[in-house]
Amino acid sequence: MNFLCGKKSADYVNTGEWSKKAIKEAKRYCSVNVAASSEDRNFTYAPQQAAWKLDRDAAYVHVCTNETIGGVEFNWVPDTGSVPLVADMSSHILSRPIDVAKYALIYAGAQKNIGPAGLTIVIVRDDLIGQTLPITPTVLDYKAQAEADSMLNTPATYGIYIAGLVFQWLKKIGGLKKIAEMNRTKAGLLYDFLDQTEFYYSPVDKADRSLMNVPFRLRNEQLNDDFLKQAKARGMVELKGHRAVGGMRASIYNAMPIEGVKALVEFMREFQAKHG
Amino acid sequence: MNFLCGKKSADYVNTGEWSKKAIKEAKRYCSVNVAASSEDRNFTYAPQQAAWKLDRDAAYVHVCTNETIGGVEFNWVPDTGSVPLVADMSSHILSRPIDVAKYALIYAGAQKNIGPAGLTIVIVRDDLIGQTLPITPTVLDYKAQAEADSMLNTPATYGIYIAGLVFQWLKKIGGLKKIAEMNRTKAGLLYDFLDQTEFYYSPVDKADRSLMNVPFRLRNEQLNDDFLKQAKARGMVELKGHRAVGGMRASIYNAMPIEGVKALVEFMREFQAKHG
Repeated sequence: MNFLCGKKSADYVNTGEWSKKAIKEAKRYCSVNVAASSEDRNFTYAPQQAAWKLDRDAAYVHVCTNETIGGVEFNWVPDTGSVPLVADMSSHILSRPIDVAKYALIYAGAQKNIGPAGLTIVIVRDDLIGQTLPITPTVLDYKAQAEADSMLNTPATYGIYIAGLVFQWLKKIGGLKKIAEMNRTKAGLLYDFLDQTEFYYSPVDKADRSLMNVPFRLRNEQLNDDFLKQAKARGMVELKGHRAVGGMRASIYNAMPIEGVKALVEFMREFQAKHG
Repeated sequence: MNFLCGKKSADYVNTGEWSKKAIKEAKRYCSVNVAASSEDRNFTYAPQQAAWKLDRDAAYVHVCTNETIGGVEFNWVPDTGSVPLVADMSSHILSRPIDVAKYALIYAGAQKNIGPAGLTIVIVRDDLIGQTLPITPTVLDYKAQAEADSMLNTPATYGIYIAGLVFQWLKKIGGLKKIAEMNRTKAGLLYDFLDQTEFYYSPVDKADRSLMNVPFRLRNEQLNDDFLKQAKARGMVELKGHRAVGGMRASIYNAMPIEGVKALVEFMREFQAKHG
């Protein structure tokens, strides 16, 4: 609604559930060209740039740089030439430094690394706002929001306050460079463990594995219920993978301390010893 | 976007700032017939039903049942026959019992009597949803939200939690009947004081005065700055009226105890004694 700028179509890269939702929504307003997709291997990788079929006349190129459900993360910035790059960074924003200048639009729900649910952050290039479709509700018009300092109506004040505290905390511990290091260590523990056992496995290509969302599976899926039950008894919850992909998923956002990942790996090791 | 149901126009009653915003927004999607307006007397009253020029073919009739800025409240339910009645109740919902069945759609931002900003409550008749315009963003489609139990995306969870606590508190103190009684007493103190002095006055017609937002003026407007300064020194803030109407405004939502209103009246009396 904000970014078509008189054009009729947009390019979307389909890397999983959140890409699919974005595509479905975009189809209300333009024709969508799926420039690349990882559906052929059940969304377990990020398609290489060389395989993208970009349209030079596209209004923009949309990517979801971290697929929360599939656990696929872009560890590189796509090159879309002069076509504006739009990214849904909801589930990994603030997990590591991002070169914001390479994106025309970044949007992210707050509820992962920023603050409480009910707040969305939008970072948009000044020169790309103001060509909103006439049928756009004013609250969704980036130009109108920018002109009103994001206070077109009373915004989610408590969420903004908490986000401020989170920003201060991040600065205090050493900023995004430091949190990135912590996240690499945390996720590394879990992926290293997964890669040295035959009992569990990570379905995602090594190069594209998310540092935030770690899906994993038991080779013997009949043990899934037992695994979840015993994990719960140890105080580890929400480990069940999304119904769209099955298996397990550990979401280890900024707020999850390394002790939590260590406890999970320890439990997985014990569970394997009992059932392997 | 949700309520046109194939029709081309809607009726709006214009009673002030929030009505005007609703009208402006509606004009993106349909032609707007202003069925009644109180602009002739600077939005200081609610137009009598007999004066409304309703269109039988209108998709719906929209009213703002409490104008926050102007302090005008509908103390009666408009009769719109078979045309659905839509009400923005943002600033007085939960202030008194409402016959919900008389409205096709009630909507209200949470930030006055419900909970923190960033949450909106919608009460809509089942038979009126599902005819949303195709260009409606899914998050604004009442049918889609209803089908997803209002959790199409992660909603404002903290706001919902606090709203739950507020509902429990209201039930505990005696429900909406009790809070209505308290609100009538609270507002009554202030209006009675305003009506017995020549120093201050209420610009709103007696029958249409809001129990939540009480605009008032000093006959000598040159004393406005002094009034605000001295009020602030007594811990009473946010008394300046909206720039659209000027003067003063006391917002006395459910959360304001009667002691707050008593303190304001006492201060106003003293200020008058000094400057009257």
